[in-house]
Amino acid sequence: MKNFDSLGLRVKNGKIYILDQTKLPHDEEWIESKSIEEMVDIIKALKVRGAPLIGVSAACALAFFAKNEKDVSVARLKDAALKLRGSRPTAVNLMNAIDRQLEVIEDAALKPGQIIERIVEVAEEICDEDVNLCEAMALNGVDTIKDGDGILTHCNTGGLATAGIGTALGVIRLAHENGKKIHVYVDETRPLLQGARLTTWELKKLGIPYTLICDNMSAMLMRAGKIQKIYVGADRIAKNGDFANKIGTYGVSVLAKHHGIPFYTVAPMTTVDFNCPTGDDIPIEERHADEVRAGRAPLDAPVFNPSFDVTPNENLTGLILDQGLFTPKQFRETF
Amino acid sequence: MKNFDSLGLRVKNGKIYILDQTKLPHDEEWIESKSIEEMVDIIKALKVRGAPLIGVSAACALAFFAKNEKDVSVARLKDAALKLRGSRPTAVNLMNAIDRQLEVIEDAALKPGQIIERIVEVAEEICDEDVNLCEAMALNGVDTIKDGDGILTHCNTGGLATAGIGTALGVIRLAHENGKKIHVYVDETRPLLQGARLTTWELKKLGIPYTLICDNMSAMLMRAGKIQKIYVGADRIAKNGDFANKIGTYGVSVLAKHHGIPFYTVAPMTTVDFNCPTGDDIPIEERHADEVRAGRAPLDAPVFNPSFDVTPNENLTGLILDQGLFTPKQFRETF
Repeated sequence: MKNFDSLGLRVKNGKIYILDQTKLPHDEEWIESKSIEEMVDIIKALKVRGAPLIGVSAACALAFFAKNEKDVSVARLKDAALKLRGSRPTAVNLMNAIDRQLEVIEDAALKPGQIIERIVEVAEEICDEDVNLCEAMALNGVDTIKDGDGILTHCNTGGLATAGIGTALGVIRLAHENGKKIHVYVDETRPLLQGARLTTWELKKLGIPYTLICDNMSAMLMRAGKIQKIYVGADRIAKNGDFANKIGTYGVSVLAKHHGIPFYTVAPMTTVDFNCPTGDDIPIEERHADEVRAGRAPLDAPVFNPSFDVTPNENLTGLILDQGLFTPKQFRETF
Repeated sequence: MKNFDSLGLRVKNGKIYILDQTKLPHDEEWIESKSIEEMVDIIKALKVRGAPLIGVSAACALAFFAKNEKDVSVARLKDAALKLRGSRPTAVNLMNAIDRQLEVIEDAALKPGQIIERIVEVAEEICDEDVNLCEAMALNGVDTIKDGDGILTHCNTGGLATAGIGTALGVIRLAHENGKKIHVYVDETRPLLQGARLTTWELKKLGIPYTLICDNMSAMLMRAGKIQKIYVGADRIAKNGDFANKIGTYGVSVLAKHHGIPFYTVAPMTTVDFNCPTGDDIPIEERHADEVRAGRAPLDAPVFNPSFDVTPNENLTGLILDQGLFTPKQFRETF
């Protein structure tokens, strides 16, 4: 597979390296993924995260497995693909990426050598596409940001969440690069603090002024008139424009509506699941109670820890996709 | 001073002990406060917290200082009182408690020995009053809770926040003791996690079923119909019914309004500041950035860390006070 270099994923001289995002921002530690099992563990442990980057990383892992494994068969390839596909249940990009490779595996017209070549090509395509999708989203969204805007974002949606410049953070980054004076308010994003750990790290690298806040502080800032726009990512978009994203997004959308603040989700079309009629049909992953307890609560405290929530499309000002900027109504009419 | 025994404060045989709330729930460590300076540090470090309990603890500390200090003069008493009074800027109970003792100190009709006796008596009165106020609030609020209710609460408002059974948590406790089947959802309450550390600890002791959540998860639960009532405390109530409470309360009030869920604040009349016309006049304490960074964000991450926010009275279903249950309109008409 050809070399590929992004903020969180590197393919170099026949090896895959993942920047361990659980160690950021204090340590920048690259780990090599040498097998399907290792990549599954890396994904499950959130060492790599962000719906698009998970898909890209998994596709690369399958390409390496196909290329390097001895005695590779259609059955073993399929088994490996399904292990990767099941490593996170909510991110549809992961399923889309692996399904493209599964189609190749199951293509009876291809010889074994051709299957392997094609799986590698598909992984390369997915990498390049993701970079291009990010650029397209940023271009489609950048005009919604005005000079002087205070911008709220939730979770991490930048170069650490994609193979390119990011989704929501890509839009913000391009506005900054175009010379617009902006200030970003970063939700820390409990329980895993992707905002506090990752978005701050990216914004600092990019030289974009920001302020870190606890998730429960954004309402006060909205009321004080500090926030003019809100951009978040999406892990899965249903056919009607409802979408699942990091837990806390729904609450932000309600606060945005109450304060009359435009609220956008930014995602590639690969995030749209046309098999999901509405947000109610999106499965929501629940994670371990210790993430919430965080060593501070009673060790046996009963916990609810959903990884995502669903924002109904009526709370959404617009969907910024690689194919354009759409209101929920336009989205439904177009796709 | 006579002995007094509560969940977070003990006066025993001429000594004051504070349960160090920063060590809960893992360690139950009682520390002795031997001077005004030590009590100021204890309050500033949030080892004792909760607007009513801060007031009670400060009043006890001043009583001990008056009783035990050699060469105590009106000037030194006043100086000690003002040090205590300034240890937290938002809690009005602290100011009210110390002001009652300052009145004694400044009463020209009293002899030095009488001043000391009276300061001690005032501290004892404040302890007993707080216990009675909690009971009155619980009685005034308990009928708002129905059998089967899911209840959201924010921060800690129980026996660790008062000298009695608590404010918001006192209402919840009485409903449970009256045999109503309830389930409490506990906001962890970032950044200092009073919900995760303290409210869980109290609810477990009381045998009340609960689930701990991150602050950003309550919106999803409201949408899912899991929450029927919301009870929070107050650190200061303005004349028009606006009130300051732990950061995050305002956001919860907006979410409550959006989902049509009754939202109450529970506080003693001593929390009402008739010199504050509206919430805009309440000073909001900002605390250290490291509380938000929590060792997980970049060490130099710019941070906004207000300790409180203001909820406008129009988001409030009712104020549950020791003098009764009032809508904001009734509150304005009555007081």
